[in-house]
Amino acid sequence: MAGGSIPSTPLLKDELDIVIPTIRNLDFLEMWRAFFQPYHLIIVQDGDPSRTIKVPEGFDYELYNRNDINRILGPKGSCISFKDSACRCFGFMISKKKYIFTIDDDCFVAKDPSGKEINALEQHIKNLLTPSTPFFFNTLYDPYRDGADFVRGYPFSFREGAPTAVSHGLWLNIPDYDAPTQLVKPLERNTRYVDAVLTIPKGTLFPMCGMNLGFNRELIGPAMYFGLMGDGQPIGRYDDMWAGWCTKVICDHFGLGVKTGLPYIWHSKASNPFVNLKKEYNGIYWQEEIIPFFQNVVIPKECTTVQKCYLELAKQVKSNLTKVDPYFDKLADAMVTWIEAWDELNPAPAINGSTKK
Amino acid sequence: MAGGSIPSTPLLKDELDIVIPTIRNLDFLEMWRAFFQPYHLIIVQDGDPSRTIKVPEGFDYELYNRNDINRILGPKGSCISFKDSACRCFGFMISKKKYIFTIDDDCFVAKDPSGKEINALEQHIKNLLTPSTPFFFNTLYDPYRDGADFVRGYPFSFREGAPTAVSHGLWLNIPDYDAPTQLVKPLERNTRYVDAVLTIPKGTLFPMCGMNLGFNRELIGPAMYFGLMGDGQPIGRYDDMWAGWCTKVICDHFGLGVKTGLPYIWHSKASNPFVNLKKEYNGIYWQEEIIPFFQNVVIPKECTTVQKCYLELAKQVKSNLTKVDPYFDKLADAMVTWIEAWDELNPAPAINGSTKK
Repeated sequence: MAGGSIPSTPLLKDELDIVIPTIRNLDFLEMWRAFFQPYHLIIVQDGDPSRTIKVPEGFDYELYNRNDINRILGPKGSCISFKDSACRCFGFMISKKKYIFTIDDDCFVAKDPSGKEINALEQHIKNLLTPSTPFFFNTLYDPYRDGADFVRGYPFSFREGAPTAVSHGLWLNIPDYDAPTQLVKPLERNTRYVDAVLTIPKGTLFPMCGMNLGFNRELIGPAMYFGLMGDGQPIGRYDDMWAGWCTKVICDHFGLGVKTGLPYIWHSKASNPFVNLKKEYNGIYWQEEIIPFFQNVVIPKECTTVQKCYLELAKQVKSNLTKVDPYFDKLADAMVTWIEAWDELNPAPAINGSTKK
Repeated sequence: MAGGSIPSTPLLKDELDIVIPTIRNLDFLEMWRAFFQPYHLIIVQDGDPSRTIKVPEGFDYELYNRNDINRILGPKGSCISFKDSACRCFGFMISKKKYIFTIDDDCFVAKDPSGKEINALEQHIKNLLTPSTPFFFNTLYDPYRDGADFVRGYPFSFREGAPTAVSHGLWLNIPDYDAPTQLVKPLERNTRYVDAVLTIPKGTLFPMCGMNLGFNRELIGPAMYFGLMGDGQPIGRYDDMWAGWCTKVICDHFGLGVKTGLPYIWHSKASNPFVNLKKEYNGIYWQEEIIPFFQNVVIPKECTTVQKCYLELAKQVKSNLTKVDPYFDKLADAMVTWIEAWDELNPAPAINGSTKK
């Protein structure tokens, strides 16, 4: 891939959309051209819809601004955040592809320790196309990788693994820290390239970052709702966290895998910690109750589709978290609206394999 | 450390024993001299006790052969395996130190990607002296390491972490594969240096290898029983696995941490896969029932010491696994004997901090 040539047969070319939320011209795509140009882009323009976003020539894309979202979803558009990158989940909903890769527009191509440019998308696809190991930990990390396998003592009945629903990639340079940590460690940079992909075990929650994220839309798409953030909301920067908690408990319910680790992207610029603190402070407080809630969620067996699980979660959010703040009542309603809108844009055949909604 | 000089103030010099099970002269210690010489060694000689094991000059050690074990433990010596490296756990029991590092005699000093010799013991000590994060996954791995921290979305109430009980190190060159995998992939070598230490989440089991292992004896020592293996037993090569499963569920019960990852050692020689298969075949079969057993074990709250937990486990092994094979009845009895012997050699004050047995 070095030298910028475009691969002749890119992986999953017709089965994957790249979703990019943005408020600015997409100059950053120039750096990704060799890797992204074969794919279809879904650009979700945030903020003022009258502004024109420039996309470098040669890319195949569709672009949705706020007017488009309101036109397509009508009153249900209320579930899509405004003035927050949480709006990206509209792209997940409007896509018709099996796989999604979503990336922030301040993420550039990283280099591996040998100096080679990292094709992040290719690694996400590898992660998504190979199984996960959520039921038992493999000490040599991803056993499906070249040069690795299951170690002694790994039960053979688990070696088939589980289908992978999510591939969570990491970031070199600016780490994904919260505002307090940013303030305390303004100069900290992530320089450690950890050459591993691993499965987050069943029953364990993790902080899912939306900056560099791949997922199987058919397996888990309706759970990838980024919540109500930004304009008019008392919280920001918890959009991907919310999606991650919901997604993880639903993946656990279905025995699906969530991987984290490679690929790295180069996160170019730290966001303003003071602005972030204003967005985050409620979330920092609320998450102390949200996490135990998700750690103890039980999804009934009757929930045989992602949609049913998600509506069940919405119900439990309403009854358990509204006491934390009235915001969660509104969020629970938006979760229901999200599923209604998802089903409207994605009518049968049923999501999630053989089970029908 | 390069050049073989001995550090002037080695960490935990008076608080750590190195336990080495062996049947041969300990020439491999020459390679470790710079790192191990400041510490006290406990050598557990396996096999023929009349043989003399040579230890390179300058090392401070005590050596126990089978006659010593029988003399010290009397009839309780039956719980210590013979003709199997499982005998190493006698060293854990006889030690009076807070920390143990145990290593196999075919493990040499590995090099990191920069070519520097890895002081495995120093890394284990770092792992053991810093907290673990068993309750929530941190995507940048060990948050207590230089250049890393907790990422956005990590609950602040969890950032204090948990005391670390176990540090499980890995192996470059010969990976720790079971016999079937050895047979299928005779040439596979582990060449991937993964620069990470991570906590195995609460509720997740892992295959603990005894080749390169550190632990806090005060926190978890009595759980580090390597079972009945080798001479006269229908199973081998499951000694460390057994210790790992028992240890992990007890660590989870107490909210203690188990780390895996760095440090690497260089595992020099693959053991004979045909011999291994003969040792392992029962274990390969039995583990399909052992793992679900450990995944579902519930230790009652009344178990306030490691010993009480371990005796409870012995009881549950007897009532749940004896149906798999009569071996487990014998093993459960040996687990009880082990605790009796442990308490004899390690009388009060109570293990496990403030709680009393």
